Amino acid sequence: MVGLSTLVSRGDHRALAKAITVVEGGGEACRRLIHEIYPRTGRAFTVGVTGPTGTGKSTLVDKMIEEYRKRAQRVGVLAIDPSSAFTGGALLGDRIRMMDHSLEKGVFIRSMASRGDIGGLARAARNTVRVLDAAGMDIIIIETVGAGQAEVEVASAVDAVVVVLMPQLGDEVQAFKAGFGEIGDVFVVNKADLVNPSKTMYNIASGLKEKDGWRPPVLKTVALKGTGVPAVVDSLERFRKHLDDKDLREKRAQGRIEQELIEAAFSDFHRETVDRLKTRKEWTGIVNQVVKRQLDPETAASKLVKTISKLGD
Amino acid sequence: MVGLSTLVSRGDHRALAKAITVVEGGGEACRRLIHEIYPRTGRAFTVGVTGPTGTGKSTLVDKMIEEYRKRAQRVGVLAIDPSSAFTGGALLGDRIRMMDHSLEKGVFIRSMASRGDIGGLARAARNTVRVLDAAGMDIIIIETVGAGQAEVEVASAVDAVVVVLMPQLGDEVQAFKAGFGEIGDVFVVNKADLVNPSKTMYNIASGLKEKDGWRPPVLKTVALKGTGVPAVVDSLERFRKHLDDKDLREKRAQGRIEQELIEAAFSDFHRETVDRLKTRKEWTGIVNQVVKRQLDPETAASKLVKTISKLGD
Repeated sequence: MVGLSTLVSRGDHRALAKAITVVEGGGEACRRLIHEIYPRTGRAFTVGVTGPTGTGKSTLVDKMIEEYRKRAQRVGVLAIDPSSAFTGGALLGDRIRMMDHSLEKGVFIRSMASRGDIGGLARAARNTVRVLDAAGMDIIIIETVGAGQAEVEVASAVDAVVVVLMPQLGDEVQAFKAGFGEIGDVFVVNKADLVNPSKTMYNIASGLKEKDGWRPPVLKTVALKGTGVPAVVDSLERFRKHLDDKDLREKRAQGRIEQELIEAAFSDFHRETVDRLKTRKEWTGIVNQVVKRQLDPETAASKLVKTISKLGD
Repeated sequence: MVGLSTLVSRGDHRALAKAITVVEGGGEACRRLIHEIYPRTGRAFTVGVTGPTGTGKSTLVDKMIEEYRKRAQRVGVLAIDPSSAFTGGALLGDRIRMMDHSLEKGVFIRSMASRGDIGGLARAARNTVRVLDAAGMDIIIIETVGAGQAEVEVASAVDAVVVVLMPQLGDEVQAFKAGFGEIGDVFVVNKADLVNPSKTMYNIASGLKEKDGWRPPVLKTVALKGTGVPAVVDSLERFRKHLDDKDLREKRAQGRIEQELIEAAFSDFHRETVDRLKTRKEWTGIVNQVVKRQLDPETAASKLVKTISKLGD
């Protein structure tokens, strides 16, 4: 019998879907799969696409897939749904439209809900990228629907980040400078046919700094018509070359791996330890004291830190 | 010299503002303040107001403040801004409008950004509620702007949750049933003058279950005109009486305290331990092996869990 990881390597779409379900589930089954495929990863170029809702990220990703296909690249897409349960329905149309590409060979699209904890989502997303990487995808795009903490965290765990905005975001451009300005490697002002995008482009560009010899370009697109999309892909290819030329890819990857290992290890430690903590007599005593207001929660937490430190004994 | 916690107890507005800044900062200064004020807390009734953006939560909270003032209640409001840096600007108008109440005696309003981690925000919010409680507020309202994971978590750490919706949310009502249906104690269909709210109200009500002898009411309001707001406050008072009559308040509080202590203790443990982990020679070895793809990240994480368990030795 051929194992799942072998089928993944052959690019079998059903095996891919199944493998992603395994990594979403976490635990030992996930660890074994990642253990098998990890040596075959690292070849794909990963791109995060993020920005406020309503700027046309899905449409842009759609057209980027087409452009990459024209260049004979195999494309994997992971679309992260927002953490809000409310907006789920409204976005389904977009997702289904994107799925059209799934029928095509050389494109694989998967969406992932962010209902759970942010750490768990980021971990599942990273491992999904590994599955797509092992399956031979040349380009892997992570698209986030919203622009919350979860989405930013996920979109940053990639080689290149594309931040999508639109003309006349007004106050939001100010807010943007404080947040997304730092994580973008390529900036796109989409819907550039609605209003003259020059002022928005200028505002964005004036807030950007050169980093490691790369000055993030600010490009305009009309994604719905495909206008400007080849230039976005060109910029990403230039950025990839820049990373390779300056040996920055491994350096950046190392920082991400350190971050990932810390998060995963403490999360697993928490999961494995919390039940043991609750069996301790100190636990019951402390909770009762806090409920009766004989002990405050902050002092209680510092006492529990000591209990946790001793659980490994 | 009179200490900060004493000034807080006297309801001094400047002391309140300062105390909240202290709890937002966390650490030992926060622990000391909470230690001092905690015995004087537990009197206020805390209400979370949550729901999708655009349903008029801020306006409703505004009118609820007015209604509570008519009933001679002192009201503290904590408004949680969304985690997205993008929407910050657009909502500022609402916040400033709300601040009008701040000039009035008996009302204190504070906003808090959710830029950081969700756990940190929830902790700061809980401690802010304690400060407002110790300051003698009778009612403390936590209003969340969005409906993301962070907002839901914060809004749930209260005695009563009000979920605000509006007529014809369509698909969102379906999504809502999966998410917010479970956390609401009172449901409000606001903007009931725009479209007939009957169908939306029926859809919501049909998805709700009785819990501990309480069937959540579904009310309609036109917050902008104040219509229906006294009934919302009446429902909250009835719910409060229900909790007291059935001794549910302490039972519910105990569950929240257990959750809080687990989160705070593991978060502090993480913070105090992570630097020590990074000085271990195993750490450097494991990171290098993962970067070179000799070891996969999931197996690496499970090795690090063992290292973390031994750090307390």
